Amino acid sequence: MYYETFGQMNKMLGQLDKWLDAAAAHAKTKSFEPATILGYRLAPDQFAFTRQVQITCDTVKLGASRLTGKEAPSHADTEQTIEELQARVRAVRAYLDGFSAADFAGTATRVVTQPRWEGKTMTGADYFMEHVVPNFYFHLNHAYAILRHVGVPLGKRDYLGALSLQAPS
Amino acid sequence: MYYETFGQMNKMLGQLDKWLDAAAAHAKTKSFEPATILGYRLAPDQFAFTRQVQITCDTVKLGASRLTGKEAPSHADTEQTIEELQARVRAVRAYLDGFSAADFAGTATRVVTQPRWEGKTMTGADYFMEHVVPNFYFHLNHAYAILRHVGVPLGKRDYLGALSLQAPS
Repeated sequence: MYYETFGQMNKMLGQLDKWLDAAAAHAKTKSFEPATILGYRLAPDQFAFTRQVQITCDTVKLGASRLTGKEAPSHADTEQTIEELQARVRAVRAYLDGFSAADFAGTATRVVTQPRWEGKTMTGADYFMEHVVPNFYFHLNHAYAILRHVGVPLGKRDYLGALSLQAPS
Repeated sequence: MYYETFGQMNKMLGQLDKWLDAAAAHAKTKSFEPATILGYRLAPDQFAFTRQVQITCDTVKLGASRLTGKEAPSHADTEQTIEELQARVRAVRAYLDGFSAADFAGTATRVVTQPRWEGKTMTGADYFMEHVVPNFYFHLNHAYAILRHVGVPLGKRDYLGALSLQAPS
């Protein structure tokens, strides 16, 4: 289910791309500078919108990379506009599009680490479940909540995207 | 991975229980009525804190029930205090504690529906991936974000809980 879950996160990044369109349209309607939104945060000691989007992207990108060994694209954290954030989202989506189910063979038992863990490790299974998925949804939802907080017209359908509903048989 | 993911959501509910303790302590420190927090929302057309907690609970409870056929506990949406919300969280955790991996045999191909889908259905696999997990994290994170927004001192460690880190070998 690793491959399928990264597919779902890829889908959610596609929704984030659309929220950014809605944010730009909202700024135009209200006649304010779109980049104003990028500095908003829900608490003074939480990350602002731009950083929430950057970390959403990095969580899934680095997660896929650490769980498969495939090198991830590098991003310099220099985005200043909605369009630049969209370019980052799309770059990560393109990276995720390049995976196949076979890339995740052996993922569960991989040994994963990152600098802040000071030499400690996690299994791939634990890292995926306890770190990648909850962190991805954390930053994605904080980005969404900031947009709702500043008045961008979004609803649950914009969050979830299209569901694979089947017509009554 | 269904069983493991519901285990992770159970863990996150345990964190939510602790955030509610922190919310009560914050209200005491600041000398305001704890229930004041329950009516907060991040946008006028989003659900308030109480409803976010209720839906977090219901998403995982009804998800587990629909994917396994095990009847879920019923809750009347009448919570008026932090303690009552904690009782609901704990009831759902107790329900989730009763599952074993075997309960999820056949989950992927189950036919799932709910009233608002007007007769349409989803496979268990799609319902789990596209609906249960993203909705669970949506309402959980909105609950968290509301607490942060009103000043409750929480951080990423309170969100994620303990990680299964292994010491260097």
